[in-house]
Amino acid sequence: MDYPNDQHPGAPVKAGIPEHGRIPKYYAVKAQLVALIDELDEAEALPAERDLALRFEVARETVRQALRELVLEGRLRRLGRGTVVAGPKLEQPLALASYTEGVRRQGRRPGRTLISLDRFPCPAALAAEIEVGRGEPVWHLERVLLADDERVGLESTYVAVDRVPDLERDFDPDSSFYAYLHDRLGISFGAADERIETVLATPREALLIGTPPALPMLLIHRISRDADGRRLERVRTLFRGDRFSFTTHLGQQG
Amino acid sequence: MDYPNDQHPGAPVKAGIPEHGRIPKYYAVKAQLVALIDELDEAEALPAERDLALRFEVARETVRQALRELVLEGRLRRLGRGTVVAGPKLEQPLALASYTEGVRRQGRRPGRTLISLDRFPCPAALAAEIEVGRGEPVWHLERVLLADDERVGLESTYVAVDRVPDLERDFDPDSSFYAYLHDRLGISFGAADERIETVLATPREALLIGTPPALPMLLIHRISRDADGRRLERVRTLFRGDRFSFTTHLGQQG
Repeated sequence: MDYPNDQHPGAPVKAGIPEHGRIPKYYAVKAQLVALIDELDEAEALPAERDLALRFEVARETVRQALRELVLEGRLRRLGRGTVVAGPKLEQPLALASYTEGVRRQGRRPGRTLISLDRFPCPAALAAEIEVGRGEPVWHLERVLLADDERVGLESTYVAVDRVPDLERDFDPDSSFYAYLHDRLGISFGAADERIETVLATPREALLIGTPPALPMLLIHRISRDADGRRLERVRTLFRGDRFSFTTHLGQQG
Repeated sequence: MDYPNDQHPGAPVKAGIPEHGRIPKYYAVKAQLVALIDELDEAEALPAERDLALRFEVARETVRQALRELVLEGRLRRLGRGTVVAGPKLEQPLALASYTEGVRRQGRRPGRTLISLDRFPCPAALAAEIEVGRGEPVWHLERVLLADDERVGLESTYVAVDRVPDLERDFDPDSSFYAYLHDRLGISFGAADERIETVLATPREALLIGTPPALPMLLIHRISRDADGRRLERVRTLFRGDRFSFTTHLGQQG
């Protein structure tokens, strides 16, 4: 069984190394580090950069570049001055269910930190998306998403004040917005359209989520409708690309 | 209407600039370049680096970093020695339908380039995923995905030889594998489970797709079942993160 891809079928073919052409030196180090990580348990520490440079006979900057990519990809994470093996990515289902439910299903504790709750006149682009008159008041609720107290994402929700007039007064920003809609106002979700892309974190986002700048993120745009088919909210959620993956089940109508 | 987020609701809040703290200089340049890009049409050229450095009164390396991020994010693309405004990302639906169908729906011409078609004994990890006995022969079909002759992705399909015994002989690798399964063998898809994450391109992948190394990519893992519910294939598809986004419609059972 010498097939070069005799590894997990989800891994890159031939370990990502070109059949022809030059392999960048840092990438050869990265491949060796991946083999090392596979032998370690979650949260176990890697040897110091200096020792890795000696072991692989390369410059420290070369080791640093390989470590940096492995951190961006979520295989390693910084801990104090060292680097430890990261846990697997959280798998969040693409579903109408809330962030809260998705995180709970994986045995993690969801949380949120309020950044701002503002009321402002609806601009044109948003008006078209949530079918609110231009200039009508809308809420912008911005929160950092937590899983087990770790900051993992940043969410902006836009919703007409008309739909949730007392948001500022009776909504606990550390709780689920969907539970609030359902339990206080009797509003259920009927459907949503989502678009997923990868973007780089902006400096503000990196600061709020506590990630290295320019970390690849998964960005989900959502427009939800209530059970009566009326447009309800426009959501922009940024998830750490090193901590999240999304799953979906596709059926015949999928 | 002075609300600082009076822009498209899909854009980062406050243009990504922190309320407190220092703004990296390259990011201030990036924000100015975004404003400039918004005024230009697709395929229009940006001024030369030297001229941008003069205009923004920064070092050329600062301009270069801002341009690099905008290229990684798909707002700009390199053309010869210059940089031009990129078109919008392709929106591919997450659906049972093939890549071919998705690309066609957007008025683009799908294509594929064969990298390799190998037959090898099924390793343990793959055996568990496609319910094939370990060591039984499986195909590995690897192709570069094209849209209008532009390389946009790389796909590895793993399928038991038992299911498609004549693949090597009668399959045109530039055609749709799903159409082949359906038209030649009467096999239809019944369901699939997908997982989406963001990863960095490996040197081999970057070479095959022709992207800058370490470009953020969208990686989709798929396990498909046929109409009888039998597991059929394991697919690993890498899409350029600067060229693709994925859409899905979520219903009550979604």
